[in-house]
Amino acid sequence: MNDAYIHGYLARESTRLQDQADTLAALLHEGTAYPPGSRVLEAGCGVGAQTLTLARRSPDAHFTSFDISAASVAEAARRVAEAGLLNVQCLQADLLAPPFAAESFDHLFVCFVLEHLPRPVEALAALRRLLRPGGSLTVIEGDHGATLCHPAGVQAQCVIDCQVELQRRAGGNALIGRQLYPLISAAGFAAVQVQPRIAYADASRPGWVDGFTHKTFIAMIEGVRDAAIAAGLATPADFDTGLQQLRRTTEPDGSFCYSFFKATAIKPLAGPAHATGPCRAG
Amino acid sequence: MNDAYIHGYLARESTRLQDQADTLAALLHEGTAYPPGSRVLEAGCGVGAQTLTLARRSPDAHFTSFDISAASVAEAARRVAEAGLLNVQCLQADLLAPPFAAESFDHLFVCFVLEHLPRPVEALAALRRLLRPGGSLTVIEGDHGATLCHPAGVQAQCVIDCQVELQRRAGGNALIGRQLYPLISAAGFAAVQVQPRIAYADASRPGWVDGFTHKTFIAMIEGVRDAAIAAGLATPADFDTGLQQLRRTTEPDGSFCYSFFKATAIKPLAGPAHATGPCRAG
Repeated sequence: MNDAYIHGYLARESTRLQDQADTLAALLHEGTAYPPGSRVLEAGCGVGAQTLTLARRSPDAHFTSFDISAASVAEAARRVAEAGLLNVQCLQADLLAPPFAAESFDHLFVCFVLEHLPRPVEALAALRRLLRPGGSLTVIEGDHGATLCHPAGVQAQCVIDCQVELQRRAGGNALIGRQLYPLISAAGFAAVQVQPRIAYADASRPGWVDGFTHKTFIAMIEGVRDAAIAAGLATPADFDTGLQQLRRTTEPDGSFCYSFFKATAIKPLAGPAHATGPCRAG
Repeated sequence: MNDAYIHGYLARESTRLQDQADTLAALLHEGTAYPPGSRVLEAGCGVGAQTLTLARRSPDAHFTSFDISAASVAEAARRVAEAGLLNVQCLQADLLAPPFAAESFDHLFVCFVLEHLPRPVEALAALRRLLRPGGSLTVIEGDHGATLCHPAGVQAQCVIDCQVELQRRAGGNALIGRQLYPLISAAGFAAVQVQPRIAYADASRPGWVDGFTHKTFIAMIEGVRDAAIAAGLATPADFDTGLQQLRRTTEPDGSFCYSFFKATAIKPLAGPAHATGPCRAG
């Protein structure tokens, strides 16, 4: 897997992801809270961008947050300690070979993870085995296809397409948000419910312009500039024009809109789990 | 203005628009209700697709609903009468030369209208004159750029692009949703607030699959098939493949997503109204 583009693995991305978590927390986490005493597994926690929000919103639940990157886990653990949170354990682990007993968690939380995986259904099925019957799954992913810019710019679309293409070449899928329903169904979960959650920024919402358009989305696209140029997907001049067109949307007469998708589902109580998914793998 | 593509003017579109109104009513009208005794002007009511919902949600407000098409107004009036609603007056009028006294309304409601107008800021400014200072404006528009299909199909995107191009050639803008903030600001309104409202359909939401994906969106695209072919924008075979790909999103492992934008604003109480808009015309 080519890590060059992967947001979250690079140390310099750490600040960006924390800005993102702060701005997006209310949008993404609304509706997510876990009962006292429940055991929650956060898969692919990265540097802990969502971990602090999760743990603060459910102070009496017990979180186990893991990531495949030891460096990311170390940063997540540092932040958890710095925040004084005592209800989170961070550890390094592989999503496809998780070191946990079957059915040892009450809930699963998976945010901005499936987009990086070549076989997301396999990963979800591996996670399902760790969940007790009746336990819940929550998945949040974005979908770059839902990006709306005003003014619209051809080069802005091109640099977004660069990110999509680099992620595809690395085995991921930056357009995965729209696919959550069939993917989660195919992994043997039931009662799958998907909600779009929209990040929208214009001059009446300066916090979104700064925290989302600038510090989250444009920062992410800036982060793939060198990789996109090295891969021959854009010239330096064209890429910079694209960034300029994205920044243009943050002026007083601009707007920027992006769609996240939040899914919830349940591990069926009995019967052959795969039979409960109405869909084949997408 | 070329009427061939314009949804709402054709008699055969009447059923489609009523289906759309029923499915979308909760999504689009949530938050819109007018106090008893208030005078509300609905500009561009068409065949009354939104009128019945408006009048039912605010039974003690007085609605004046107008459209430039006498045939559409007749149909709207018939529906209002059929529904037994006594708080709506329907009449034929031109948005740019409205036959009403200045400041004679407390509120304005404008849904799926600006998308058809070559000069939406001018239309909004003409409507603003009819509104009392402190009165409210509500605008709802879609944005075809925010359409997400799964499975994604190249030809599906092409037929959507046909609709966008035909509407552009007729002087309209099917991508106007993202522009509401600057347009409304430029027309001299204040306190402009825009919210995206998302129509999302998958197999867990059969009402949306049927009422929105099939009966609203695909029906709209089907409605421009002949015009698109006549304009040389697509071959019959390619257009039909596009429709097939759109229908494919309604199968059990598909999904379909579309963004509407709902804006509210206020007519400033005093001072040169245009100076209160922070933006230039978009």
